[in-house]
Amino acid sequence: MAQQRARGREETLLDVDRLFPADPGTRSVARELYAHIRDLPIVSPHGHTDPRWYAENEAFPDPAQLFVVPDHYVFRMLFGQGVKLEELGVPTRDGTAVETDSRKIWRRFAENYHLFRGTPTRLWLDHSFSTLFDIDVVLSAKTADFYYDRIAERLAQLDYRPRALFERFNIEVIATTESPLDDLRWHQKIGESGWTGRVITAYRPDAVVDPAFQGFRENIEIFGEISGENVGNFAGYLDAHRARRRFFKSLGATSTDHGHATARTENLDRGEAERLYQKALRGDISAEEADAFRGHMLTEMARMSLDDGLVMQIHPGSWRNHSQAIFNRFGRDKGFDIPTRTDYVKALKPMLDVVGTEPGLSVILFTLDETAYSRELAPLAGVYPCLKLGPAWWFFDSAEGMRRFRELTTETAGFYNTVGFNDDTRAFCSIPARHDVARRVDCAFLAELVVTGRLREDEAHEVAHDLTYRLVKEAYRL
Amino acid sequence: MAQQRARGREETLLDVDRLFPADPGTRSVARELYAHIRDLPIVSPHGHTDPRWYAENEAFPDPAQLFVVPDHYVFRMLFGQGVKLEELGVPTRDGTAVETDSRKIWRRFAENYHLFRGTPTRLWLDHSFSTLFDIDVVLSAKTADFYYDRIAERLAQLDYRPRALFERFNIEVIATTESPLDDLRWHQKIGESGWTGRVITAYRPDAVVDPAFQGFRENIEIFGEISGENVGNFAGYLDAHRARRRFFKSLGATSTDHGHATARTENLDRGEAERLYQKALRGDISAEEADAFRGHMLTEMARMSLDDGLVMQIHPGSWRNHSQAIFNRFGRDKGFDIPTRTDYVKALKPMLDVVGTEPGLSVILFTLDETAYSRELAPLAGVYPCLKLGPAWWFFDSAEGMRRFRELTTETAGFYNTVGFNDDTRAFCSIPARHDVARRVDCAFLAELVVTGRLREDEAHEVAHDLTYRLVKEAYRL
Amino acid sequence: MAQQRARGREETLLDVDRLFPADPGTRSVARELYAHIRDLPIVSPHGHTDPRWYAENEAFPDPAQLFVVPDHYVFRMLFGQGVKLEELGVPTRDGTAVETDSRKIWRRFAENYHLFRGTPTRLWLDHSFSTLFDIDVVLSAKTADFYYDRIAERLAQLDYRPRALFERFNIEVIATTESPLDDLRWHQKIGESGWTGRVITAYRPDAVVDPAFQGFRENIEIFGEISGENVGNFAGYLDAHRARRRFFKSLGATSTDHGHATARTENLDRGEAERLYQKALRGDISAEEADAFRGHMLTEMARMSLDDGLVMQIHPGSWRNHSQAIFNRFGRDKGFDIPTRTDYVKALKPMLDVVGTEPGLSVILFTLDETAYSRELAPLAGVYPCLKLGPAWWFFDSAEGMRRFRELTTETAGFYNTVGFNDDTRAFCSIPARHDVARRVDCAFLAELVVTGRLREDEAHEVAHDLTYRLVKEAYRL
Repeated sequence: MAQQRARGREETLLDVDRLFPADPGTRSVARELYAHIRDLPIVSPHGHTDPRWYAENEAFPDPAQLFVVPDHYVFRMLFGQGVKLEELGVPTRDGTAVETDSRKIWRRFAENYHLFRGTPTRLWLDHSFSTLFDIDVVLSAKTADFYYDRIAERLAQLDYRPRALFERFNIEVIATTESPLDDLRWHQKIGESGWTGRVITAYRPDAVVDPAFQGFRENIEIFGEISGENVGNFAGYLDAHRARRRFFKSLGATSTDHGHATARTENLDRGEAERLYQKALRGDISAEEADAFRGHMLTEMARMSLDDGLVMQIHPGSWRNHSQAIFNRFGRDKGFDIPTRTDYVKALKPMLDVVGTEPGLSVILFTLDETAYSRELAPLAGVYPCLKLGPAWWFFDSAEGMRRFRELTTETAGFYNTVGFNDDTRAFCSIPARHDVARRVDCAFLAELVVTGRLREDEAHEVAHDLTYRLVKEAYRL
Repeated sequence: MAQQRARGREETLLDVDRLFPADPGTRSVARELYAHIRDLPIVSPHGHTDPRWYAENEAFPDPAQLFVVPDHYVFRMLFGQGVKLEELGVPTRDGTAVETDSRKIWRRFAENYHLFRGTPTRLWLDHSFSTLFDIDVVLSAKTADFYYDRIAERLAQLDYRPRALFERFNIEVIATTESPLDDLRWHQKIGESGWTGRVITAYRPDAVVDPAFQGFRENIEIFGEISGENVGNFAGYLDAHRARRRFFKSLGATSTDHGHATARTENLDRGEAERLYQKALRGDISAEEADAFRGHMLTEMARMSLDDGLVMQIHPGSWRNHSQAIFNRFGRDKGFDIPTRTDYVKALKPMLDVVGTEPGLSVILFTLDETAYSRELAPLAGVYPCLKLGPAWWFFDSAEGMRRFRELTTETAGFYNTVGFNDDTRAFCSIPARHDVARRVDCAFLAELVVTGRLREDEAHEVAHDLTYRLVKEAYRL
Repeated sequence: MAQQRARGREETLLDVDRLFPADPGTRSVARELYAHIRDLPIVSPHGHTDPRWYAENEAFPDPAQLFVVPDHYVFRMLFGQGVKLEELGVPTRDGTAVETDSRKIWRRFAENYHLFRGTPTRLWLDHSFSTLFDIDVVLSAKTADFYYDRIAERLAQLDYRPRALFERFNIEVIATTESPLDDLRWHQKIGESGWTGRVITAYRPDAVVDPAFQGFRENIEIFGEISGENVGNFAGYLDAHRARRRFFKSLGATSTDHGHATARTENLDRGEAERLYQKALRGDISAEEADAFRGHMLTEMARMSLDDGLVMQIHPGSWRNHSQAIFNRFGRDKGFDIPTRTDYVKALKPMLDVVGTEPGLSVILFTLDETAYSRELAPLAGVYPCLKLGPAWWFFDSAEGMRRFRELTTETAGFYNTVGFNDDTRAFCSIPARHDVARRVDCAFLAELVVTGRLREDEAHEVAHDLTYRLVKEAYRL
């Protein structure tokens, strides 16, 4: 029977029962749950797609530029096995020449495709290849050119333009992420275009909140100009945030996003905050002071969220640009962001002592340290009204990672302190694949609860719908 | 077939096969193991039920006062979703009025019952509702009044008084937990009553060991009076402990219990211990010194255990009363105790260097940091004769939590360095439910070992019995 | 059916389907995968067997001396339950008498054999008892003498001598581990003997790299003599390493191994390195300086590996000899090495900034802190070309431990940043058992991926072969 199923599986890139439990009884419950939610629209409240795509609606250039060159999940794995980033066409900061022949890049990727066995990247890619490009053979050195030609041919078609794919993906709403310094021109253009796709922004102020951010002082200057506020003192600086948040809201934003090295918060008195801000402006702030300032700004942002209703997302714990050599040559986001151990219990206390029990506030916590799920995050989110748990993030946005998230948080925080799925991606074609994985893994988890007598089947159907759709819209106020 | 099973499940609140593995072959082994141990008496060596219940044997007041108001598992989840503690009747410290209409409290609980989906609280409650109150519909806004009336009616019956339930629950022995300052009057009254139920105390000296404990200096004064020892110096203070331990033993105590913020132990010389004690008495001890003093007292308690044979329990790692606002208004134990990362390897070394290899000593370790199971606790308990592992605790007293405990400790420490189950509860009606969950999860784990060829079925039967009954009695010397 | 299977299981010590998934469909895929790799030769690139065995090819003395006295997995569990090490014949440092009657030792072991239920030690032992000694009853007090006699009888036979077992185990190559101070006489003797078994050494320089190592200064003196280099200064000391590495390579070494308390690396300038080295030589180096020196030596060793091609293994995170009392009486390696929390992200950065992106270098990382798998190790190994992940180590060299390793690393690092299995053992007879466990667990994991549509069956066959054989040989350059 296993042989037979195995043969069945080999006829296509996608097993119809993928990610469902192996046990036949549990699998059939999972299948049933999934059947009721698989076609729900995609609500994507947090991600990094480029709003220009939707504004200009140009064709994606070619297979390599779509799937390899911009995707750090892909090129980090190849680099880790000895392929040079230059050979993959990843642009250098100083403009040194890199591979420009997209077919060559694609072939390098194809001949190393076995490296992705067992990874979510493989699942996402196969999902795209199969559902978007109607391919049913595995990518390899042998099939590289067939793949390239098929994908290139399709990308030239009008129905593979960004807006057409957006509609085909059944996206109800998608959020992008922008800096306060961004003029949001693409969002404005989308709004003026008459196209009905809902693309909104999110307020990500790291560039003007982190004194260690590249170009911080210049950023603050621009921040003053673009907001029309006097950023020479801390009160004016906070006003500038308020102004930009208003502007972001006017272009649909319902959330802010904060990417800090740790989850540290502070509640400094106004004089100390001013002192640190002035040091940051002068560029003589110490590392510890900069960290305190960042921590204090989380509390200030929470206070602003109480006023303007923007949902607050905290994404801590990534050691950015771990390799100095790679950063120097290629810049940020080149696959060298590494998770670190992250504390929440002590770190969040100053902010929680200010706003923690406000039911009107919504703070969504993420982690790259899975040990915090059961020890810190579920206990905190299970009692503080303002706290909710974001889904399994980044390296844990995978079948096993999502399963662990549910196993480690549900018993303490339940389902209703979680907020559904984030695809959190720049890889446009992976969006339906990622949401599909999340839906399947949740249905598998729920089916397991049903079959082991921990949840009734009618309740599981309701929870599946909540996790896929209702909780996302409520948590992000969409 | 899954459909059929699902329908079967919907007819009652409790699936007869709940928590058993989904795979039919494994499930049948689990069922068989469970059948042999399900009716063993409950041995409850660690918990927080109120001895007054057994002494006075009064009826429990009403459904809300039994299931909602005193249970922090319940009201923390409701609070975390925006229900005020006042609306749930949780009393304030200053006596400000809170909801007193128990039916209203019950309805608020009932209409939010979906929040508990997937949590152990849901399993425990459904178990009580089904087995004690013969209810077979799910609690909800619609069924709230039906529930209230049924439960209230039963609570008025004589066979729902504490002693009757104690006997119905088949409790062989239960331990409560008292401070050295307690006069143990209820235990004495139970002893004098002629009732044969075995209710014993346990010695929990935090109030006179932790210089940061509320009212520490007054506590020490009372400690001197109640023990008749001169607590003006450290030697007399230790004698006071010895005296109270003797008194607790005379009322059945076989164990002590220590709730510290960390697992830190110290082995100070006598002069240093005296110095810290005097500072604690004067109230000018620093935070670090207070921590050292607490740590040293664990070693002193271990030494006393060597003499008087009381089993020592260490429950470290809870950040108590994390929200200052909630503590100020409602006091301790309001669901705001949050686990923290906990080290054992360095922390326990001073104590272990003194008593670690004494086979006559028994120290039971607990954790709220699951990462310590495989990395620290199982390796330590697997070699130090005095150390044993307490069961999955608090947030981890759940099906998934217990499964992880076994998966992460068994291969290094085996089964025989563990001590069976603790219900550790104030929620009287949950006691049989909790023990039942533990028995089922252990049988499920053992069945998995049997079916995957890691344990013979005859041995699994013996282990199931040991984990449920024999090891508990031996470890706690009951 | 479960009953029937259970009866089947009881007829022998070894279930033919042990460690395969319970679900019948998944089990049949696992069985099929395993059938194709079960008979592959054993490649054992890291271990601690005694080269003298192979050189002299003497009979093993008796059952207790083979299975109990030298195996810390065995005697630590017995000690932890109150059996004295003296009663198990573990030799004392000062020569105080211990039990010498091997049959008595064996009986003590046998009557406590139930302690090993659920542990990998039990699986390994039963595998040896069954496959090597044709025993099919469980060891117990009752069967102790039968076991002793059977094993003793076989050990006297020529085909139970080390070389015969080596061949019977189908070992293609095995590495031992030696100090730079070792003259490798046994390896030379093996080479000269004409026997074709491939036994190679590995370079483990802790004794001359760690200033806190017992006898460090004397060790350095011998190091100078044996290498013929002037170890009075740091440059000469490095040359001594180079010389000894050359010598180790001449006797087959393809790797070095580094057992440090943490994963700390440093990249000191030459003057600072010299300064610390001189302090170490004088014996007045502080604990922090010694730690920095060890950290710097990892970077130096990595540089040397770039030159001479030796694969570098880093085994951090063990708190050695945790019990001072046991160390004083019995010395090192007595079961009191306890894992500690281990950081890699900050710790490895200095070394990685020097050699991290060199594809010619191969550094294999191990851990005793499983929380690092998904948070740190897989992300690091998934992007740095020089890094690979060693298999689940020591306390985690077990079915559950190996499963967690795959579940927590594969999605980020894939299979191809891992290096297959290490048995890492002194217990010769356990070698085939350990490799068999690893092969079964990998096949079980792969079968799960196949059945849940995450990997095609043809690919799973290739991965199973790679993990068992190809990747080991490539990673260790064998």
